[in-house]
Amino acid sequence: MQDALTQCRVGIIGLGLMGGSIALALQGACRSISGYDANPDTIAQAIDRGIIHRPIDLRGDEVDVLILAAPVSAILDWIDRVPPIFSGEFHLIDLGSTKAQIVERMQSLPDRISPLGGHPMCGKETSGLAVADGDLYRGCVFALTPLDRTRSETLHLAQDLINALHARSLLLEPQAHDRAVAAISHLPYLMATSLIDTVARLNADTAWALAASGFRDTTRLAASDVTMLLDILKSNRGEVLRALNDVQSSLQATIDLIEGEDWPQLRSKLEAAREKRLWWENV
Amino acid sequence: MQDALTQCRVGIIGLGLMGGSIALALQGACRSISGYDANPDTIAQAIDRGIIHRPIDLRGDEVDVLILAAPVSAILDWIDRVPPIFSGEFHLIDLGSTKAQIVERMQSLPDRISPLGGHPMCGKETSGLAVADGDLYRGCVFALTPLDRTRSETLHLAQDLINALHARSLLLEPQAHDRAVAAISHLPYLMATSLIDTVARLNADTAWALAASGFRDTTRLAASDVTMLLDILKSNRGEVLRALNDVQSSLQATIDLIEGEDWPQLRSKLEAAREKRLWWENV
Repeated sequence: MQDALTQCRVGIIGLGLMGGSIALALQGACRSISGYDANPDTIAQAIDRGIIHRPIDLRGDEVDVLILAAPVSAILDWIDRVPPIFSGEFHLIDLGSTKAQIVERMQSLPDRISPLGGHPMCGKETSGLAVADGDLYRGCVFALTPLDRTRSETLHLAQDLINALHARSLLLEPQAHDRAVAAISHLPYLMATSLIDTVARLNADTAWALAASGFRDTTRLAASDVTMLLDILKSNRGEVLRALNDVQSSLQATIDLIEGEDWPQLRSKLEAAREKRLWWENV
Repeated sequence: MQDALTQCRVGIIGLGLMGGSIALALQGACRSISGYDANPDTIAQAIDRGIIHRPIDLRGDEVDVLILAAPVSAILDWIDRVPPIFSGEFHLIDLGSTKAQIVERMQSLPDRISPLGGHPMCGKETSGLAVADGDLYRGCVFALTPLDRTRSETLHLAQDLINALHARSLLLEPQAHDRAVAAISHLPYLMATSLIDTVARLNADTAWALAASGFRDTTRLAASDVTMLLDILKSNRGEVLRALNDVQSSLQATIDLIEGEDWPQLRSKLEAAREKRLWWENV
């Protein structure tokens, strides 16, 4: 296996928004790009548009870096399917939205494969190769969750890849990653759906007519792809439940303060949230 | 009192974002604009910039339309202060964020004043005359909550005003208004603060580092001005508590489905929210 990205034959499994965007961003930055997608039309389009150079041959193929750009459940399946397809030594990096299950499954890979968990913190509400964008990863944080068995060359190569995407790497433990994304990503999605649910239960057309930009922003995530999100929720069930219970406690504290008309304490709680939000915006 | 906006002497109490933006949008659309603000510098600036033509004289003044553009608690005070200051007949319209308390207080006004509750569904995260914008109201919904005593001329004049702002009017009952805004505005704010609270309680720097655009949008309202929001929460306490309890029920239903691993039912719940959100976006 090659350790310098420019010398690497890169393979990408999954040519949707994430995989297609990586292929676009890597043009000229590696030796070649092969690709596979469950939809044969997508493979044909990727070749026609010059996004990949050739299809991956599932009967037997060779790569230096293999990128799994699929939903979590598909990545788990591919980790089992990869060894008989690809011969020789290579680096394996996934882009899954949760990491503990995937990293655990990567332990079963043969020694000749050096695995590394990855999760770029970017995306769009739309999906598919048609909306792939070579600038998708620009400026985003790309989380990396190495295993004990991950070779240092694989980490260096991942850094080359992240540089080529104009993203920023962040190393962390798979469990810490999953706990954090439960709070900053999966919980906001579920809260957005419950907010929609609450307005719908009012059964008042005027509520929808009055809703403006604040409601639009707060509920935007409720329009996310349900299949993809269910996949994420299943694979991060424990941490998602923890985050949901935490937010319920916080909301209950707010309810108690409003019921008790304890306005000074409520002010402290709201000011603390405001300061934290302003701090984060300016980090 | 004049019933055609072009003939009206308009008075505006509160020359912040909302009042200042109305003054800018009404340039040339009415006979004159007078204004008052608790901060004398703001009055001076409004005159210097030609946003208002003269200050309101609190020792005694005359207008055809008076607009109360202040936080809810200040509007409640002004409803009591207005009659001794302004002589003769005139229309009174407020821009308060909640309507039941304000409309109730308007009942005490003398007959010569024709009151009308109003609430334009727009704003910015920043406040003050410096950020006033003549296009602020363009395209927004302007809720009107008439009283039994509101004269039809006042409703016609309000429609002229709303046309001049390039906004759209929506008539509704004060209670229906307050229930709706509790769900589509006050609840999203409180949910955003609890989401920030939940991430803060993780006590993990990496969580803030991983947070991206979805989190940014979902929590934007948490940066709102606390004093203004507390004022709103106090004046809409019952409906806000109702909305908070409703969203807690919805979140609990989500928790139960995830705990019970009832993925088909969870899919139905999430799909229903997604469809409702997409429907609303395209209304």
